[in-house]
Amino acid sequence: MEYNFQQLATLYKNTLLNDVLPFWEKYSCDREQGGYFTCLDREGKVYDTDKFIWLQNRQIWTFSMLYNQLENEKQENWLEIARNGANFLAKHGRDGEGNWYFALNHNGEPLIQPYNIFSDCFAAMAFSKYALASGEEWAKDVAISAYNNVLRRQENPKGKYTKAYPGTRPMKSLAVPMILANLTLEMEWLLTAETLESVLDATVKEVMGDFYDRDRGLMFENVTPDGSHLDCFDGRLINPGHGIEAMWFIMDIASRSNDTKTINQAVDVVLNILDFAWDKEFGGLYYFMDADGHPPQQLEWDQKLWWVHLETLVALAIAYRLTKRDICWEWYKKVHDYAWNHFADAECGEWFGYLNRRGEVLLNLKGGKWKGCFHVPRAMYLCWQQFEGL
Amino acid sequence: MEYNFQQLATLYKNTLLNDVLPFWEKYSCDREQGGYFTCLDREGKVYDTDKFIWLQNRQIWTFSMLYNQLENEKQENWLEIARNGANFLAKHGRDGEGNWYFALNHNGEPLIQPYNIFSDCFAAMAFSKYALASGEEWAKDVAISAYNNVLRRQENPKGKYTKAYPGTRPMKSLAVPMILANLTLEMEWLLTAETLESVLDATVKEVMGDFYDRDRGLMFENVTPDGSHLDCFDGRLINPGHGIEAMWFIMDIASRSNDTKTINQAVDVVLNILDFAWDKEFGGLYYFMDADGHPPQQLEWDQKLWWVHLETLVALAIAYRLTKRDICWEWYKKVHDYAWNHFADAECGEWFGYLNRRGEVLLNLKGGKWKGCFHVPRAMYLCWQQFEGL
Repeated sequence: MEYNFQQLATLYKNTLLNDVLPFWEKYSCDREQGGYFTCLDREGKVYDTDKFIWLQNRQIWTFSMLYNQLENEKQENWLEIARNGANFLAKHGRDGEGNWYFALNHNGEPLIQPYNIFSDCFAAMAFSKYALASGEEWAKDVAISAYNNVLRRQENPKGKYTKAYPGTRPMKSLAVPMILANLTLEMEWLLTAETLESVLDATVKEVMGDFYDRDRGLMFENVTPDGSHLDCFDGRLINPGHGIEAMWFIMDIASRSNDTKTINQAVDVVLNILDFAWDKEFGGLYYFMDADGHPPQQLEWDQKLWWVHLETLVALAIAYRLTKRDICWEWYKKVHDYAWNHFADAECGEWFGYLNRRGEVLLNLKGGKWKGCFHVPRAMYLCWQQFEGL
Repeated sequence: MEYNFQQLATLYKNTLLNDVLPFWEKYSCDREQGGYFTCLDREGKVYDTDKFIWLQNRQIWTFSMLYNQLENEKQENWLEIARNGANFLAKHGRDGEGNWYFALNHNGEPLIQPYNIFSDCFAAMAFSKYALASGEEWAKDVAISAYNNVLRRQENPKGKYTKAYPGTRPMKSLAVPMILANLTLEMEWLLTAETLESVLDATVKEVMGDFYDRDRGLMFENVTPDGSHLDCFDGRLINPGHGIEAMWFIMDIASRSNDTKTINQAVDVVLNILDFAWDKEFGGLYYFMDADGHPPQQLEWDQKLWWVHLETLVALAIAYRLTKRDICWEWYKKVHDYAWNHFADAECGEWFGYLNRRGEVLLNLKGGKWKGCFHVPRAMYLCWQQFEGL
């Protein structure tokens, strides 16, 4: 296809407003119990009614964020949809100590304990944006309280559910500073300038200092507390989509202060990961890799996932807007062609989530335990904005 | 190929003695620290030195069991290899309360806590057989103590690491009675006749009463405590290899008392699972399925795994020996052709573990975190014995 920025902006905008959002509006709202159904088959039919807290919060976030950002296009029912989730989650989502469960059943009874901090992360993001959209004061308190949980538990994100024996192999994960960077930006309007700048500064330093390997140009998922490598399955793990997503968070933060050095470094990492993780035979990006080329422990390593490709499109669009480097634009077009040709479902709407290595649909679903109303609409919105800005 | 029982017996015997065992003898023994390397690439080269307790114990079991069973073929170094693991594990494998860790590092320092009872199961099996092989009294005590851990913890196999919220959705897993059935037989010489019969009786009743769905003819992985179905990801889960393996354990137990009714029922389940889980397009058995045809949560669901096919060959060989039903022989030949054509590695020895849906090698390894010296040699030995018996 021919690519021009205005056409791309229109493609993303139309897909967001006329395809993706209507899919979730139509099929996912549980009008009886509140909250959302996220296990939707190709056509939107509910095949499981459990409510996974990550995805519940992410859907609140999506509808609230778009309601806040899209002055001209927003619809009043977006706020209603967000409220339908927010009221349900505020009532059922937390244990007695205010920690966010991992899953609830259809009625809101707890199924899975708060075994890590990511539910709290997504709750903070969701209620921050919902408070802004609705003007409801109580939602601010929910957001701040969840954010404080994350800060409090960040050194020990799994708490008593940690299976690692203390001391033998100290290790920290990219997920924690990465999500904290993004989350803190999301919370900006509720934080003091001092908290904001100190958390952002620390997370950028940690991600680019400890998890980034300058020699190989790759972002590692797990390192020792001082940023050294570990020669074990976890220590060799490369999660290309995660590394690339982290890099657009970094570009986002660095662009606030026109820190071109950090922006260019983050762009270089994206390009290095793409070189390393692009499947030269079938196209697309691998899900997991071993930095040394050993067999990864994740059996799904060679699959092509929707969010990996969407986050890559976002990263490349931001990278190109900020740096105008040709190589970003070349990669953008290559990933665009792969993603739009393989994941988009012209017949039933929304995107497929899981393809096998060859790019064939592996799971015929639009939503499940991990795929909800989040990466697709967020990427559509962000890419639209980048191309509009170009 | 032409199949005759003597040729098949010879194939399994020769593969066990001249291919599989030499592979592990040659590449897996850690002569310096003790224990075994199980992360071996296609050619046997060690790519990771962590020591996973399931696999450590299973290798002790394999070499001890064969030393006990094969009067004519056994080699003295099999006992040495078993001792190399047993001494290492007796020293490093357990926490202060006698629970078995999940993983140790190269030197034997604990890496992963005892977060479920399966490490204890495999320890009981290993040390039972090792005590018999070596005549060492202390090893008996290790076995009995691990077995008592399993009995004590069977109602709450994950203990404090359980993530399920108590009470909302009570659920039990096939893995527990299944492993208990097999383990109890393995411990026979160390148990009173009363304990033996009561545990075997209870496990057969539980597996065939609660986990077996008579209407569908399938074995479910997870049910309510009274054996009802649950309409959720876990409740709809079918693990064909696991169900088939459980059925040969049941045949094994039922054949002790010539309980032909139970034997035939178990054979019927195997045949039903095969009909349900055989990939009609590419051949082989799927790894995971949803009983209602919804998308399973396991992304690796369509992969073809070595142990699934080997346990199926064992189940069909036992089923045919016990019942002489033609359909078992027809299925045996079909699975035999698939398994020997796709998993066996004539060039480097041993079997590949992980194929994609099309039967192409997905991970180029002979051992890893979950594949060690166990399913291949156990199945070779058992199939050899069945065909020798025919």
